[in-house]
Amino acid sequence: MTQRIAVIPGDGIGTEVMPEGLRALEAAAKKFGIDLAFEHFDFACCDYYAKHGQMMPDDWFDQLKDFDAIFYGAVGWPDTVPDHVSLWGSLLQFRRQFDQYINLRPCKLLPGIKSPLADRKPGDIDFYVVRENTEGEYSSVGGKMFEGTDREVVIQETVMSRHGVDRVLKYAFDLAQSRPRKKLTSATKSNGIAITMPWWDERVEAMSGNYSDVSVDKFHIDILTANFVLHPDWFDVVVGSNLFGDILSDLGPACTGTIGVAPSANINPEGRFPSLFEPVHGSAPDIAGKGIANPIGQIWSGAMMLEHLGHAEAAKAIVDAFEAVLAEGDASLLTPDIRGQGTTETLGQAIAQRL
Amino acid sequence: MTQRIAVIPGDGIGTEVMPEGLRALEAAAKKFGIDLAFEHFDFACCDYYAKHGQMMPDDWFDQLKDFDAIFYGAVGWPDTVPDHVSLWGSLLQFRRQFDQYINLRPCKLLPGIKSPLADRKPGDIDFYVVRENTEGEYSSVGGKMFEGTDREVVIQETVMSRHGVDRVLKYAFDLAQSRPRKKLTSATKSNGIAITMPWWDERVEAMSGNYSDVSVDKFHIDILTANFVLHPDWFDVVVGSNLFGDILSDLGPACTGTIGVAPSANINPEGRFPSLFEPVHGSAPDIAGKGIANPIGQIWSGAMMLEHLGHAEAAKAIVDAFEAVLAEGDASLLTPDIRGQGTTETLGQAIAQRL
Ligand SMILES: CC(C)[C@H](C(=O)O)[C@@H](O)C(=O)O
Ligand SMILES: CC(C)[C@H](C(=O)O)[C@@H](O)C(=O)O
Repeated sequence: MTQRIAVIPGDGIGTEVMPEGLRALEAAAKKFGIDLAFEHFDFACCDYYAKHGQMMPDDWFDQLKDFDAIFYGAVGWPDTVPDHVSLWGSLLQFRRQFDQYINLRPCKLLPGIKSPLADRKPGDIDFYVVRENTEGEYSSVGGKMFEGTDREVVIQETVMSRHGVDRVLKYAFDLAQSRPRKKLTSATKSNGIAITMPWWDERVEAMSGNYSDVSVDKFHIDILTANFVLHPDWFDVVVGSNLFGDILSDLGPACTGTIGVAPSANINPEGRFPSLFEPVHGSAPDIAGKGIANPIGQIWSGAMMLEHLGHAEAAKAIVDAFEAVLAEGDASLLTPDIRGQGTTETLGQAIAQRL
Repeated sequence: MTQRIAVIPGDGIGTEVMPEGLRALEAAAKKFGIDLAFEHFDFACCDYYAKHGQMMPDDWFDQLKDFDAIFYGAVGWPDTVPDHVSLWGSLLQFRRQFDQYINLRPCKLLPGIKSPLADRKPGDIDFYVVRENTEGEYSSVGGKMFEGTDREVVIQETVMSRHGVDRVLKYAFDLAQSRPRKKLTSATKSNGIAITMPWWDERVEAMSGNYSDVSVDKFHIDILTANFVLHPDWFDVVVGSNLFGDILSDLGPACTGTIGVAPSANINPEGRFPSLFEPVHGSAPDIAGKGIANPIGQIWSGAMMLEHLGHAEAAKAIVDAFEAVLAEGDASLLTPDIRGQGTTETLGQAIAQRL
């Protein structure tokens, strides 16, 4: 059975790391006899916007909806298109319209990558952030009053639904239950954000009734970010709202030194719509065009995509391959961000060869 | 001229660190000939709630409004009163009703305190977080619909005003301008929170026109938390909304290893109402009653209070005193959280003696 992948490189270094992502996928597909068909799309990027005045064609939904997955690079080029325009015109549309209500991001201390935290070694940090990905603080409801005057007031509504929150909690509890430590941490701020967040706590409490074997704790987001730095070993699965999950899934990889290599899976668990896999890093205008972007974020995203498509063994082989190349630490192959003298291509090739 | 201070120990370790905060203040007052009068209050704590069914008497505002400052310990005892009840019934009331619209928190790597970050030494990290302290995400507007059913929706509104935001930005720009590096960083999330946050960016942009000598940058809150860990030396003055400032002012002290000793100043800059000074740490039920809480947060808050009251020299003397005790590192005096075998009292006494 052929699985069809929509390939969208996007902007900046997205176009540079995508070929290496595909190279690793092709190598793994060959090795494990997986039948993947890639189809390339030139929209959902700022070049497309420059030509058409919008980020995507009107029929983007129909063009993409029957794919088995979307493999995305990075989007954004603030010099030509403001970020909220490019993002709300592409990535955030995918997440919502394809109901990719789970954003799953691993935080893992890898061999050969220097953590900014003192005295931590591979194995010490290994957890997932599960982020609500369609509602919450990322709302489009609100507006301005007395605009442009001294009385100006600006309002934006955080909108949470039982439907939206419970399904994310269920996913997070299921994930925690499947892992050896069986531990779930909820990100809250019920002491300050006193309408939505105490209710979030109640939903966590209610859901935990179905998972007596999962141990649950919660932290307010302020002290939780502190604990990511102070006690990253405490965490197994961390679940948060759209905004809190966003923050934690940048901070977590930063603590493991992997902000440039972390992957992100935007998942519609029921498979009613395609899920989307992308590196956490953005389009990185500062290093775009130099061929030195680290391709591991794209490659790791590809591994998460394979796992989602039912190829767990192939996914693991990809992760093993880049971990082996990192552990070996041949500086001539590695990109400059991880203290090498190589290029996007040398690192991508080394990983593909390992497979 | 006598300056009148309202003293409110609050809950848990608040009652244990307060005497040491007062001891340092009294020593400094004596040395510098400052005339302080302390008056003690037993409300704004959960004991009071247990007796009266509310956190404060109805006339709390009138009782406190003519003081020159409020010196607060910590509030909260979740076993008896839910946090959002105790906080919205005390601290958050003070901040709003006394229009303490600035929350100022130093993040400083101190001698003798171990940072969780690798390879950082005292001097490397030294910045302020300026937090909007009365509006924004901490709103009381919103509610529930279809409560208790599968269709349940919960909404909370973030409310920002030009009045509220501009005055905080002005304070932050003034502060940046007064410091050698003259650098301001704005916390935003205009790519995702697409109504309030692009507007926040515009206000920063507009205000920066009045401060041509201050260099300004901005980061989205997700990558900003990452940069606190990766590049804490980049920052001089960081300004954020109520929620973002809350997060950053826990994360910053965590990165310097000082989460247990950091102070917090809730300021009404015009002096129309009393400002409030409190340690960042909470009531810490887990160690309350043992006499081992670190009193430096309370003492440092006292120093910020003196500075606010016009006694900069005395404030500096207090900071110098605890830095000297920390640098000396006599473990028999230090509290367990900073690897000592002493108590709240031994550490408090050592600092007061230094003065
Ligand atoms: C206790 C809580 C409501 C408070 C806040 O979020 O403002 C605290 O975290 C703080 O930072 O002072
Ligand atoms: C670019 C931005 C809108 C996006 C988000 O906040 O969701 C990004 O930070 C992410 O985490 O995928």
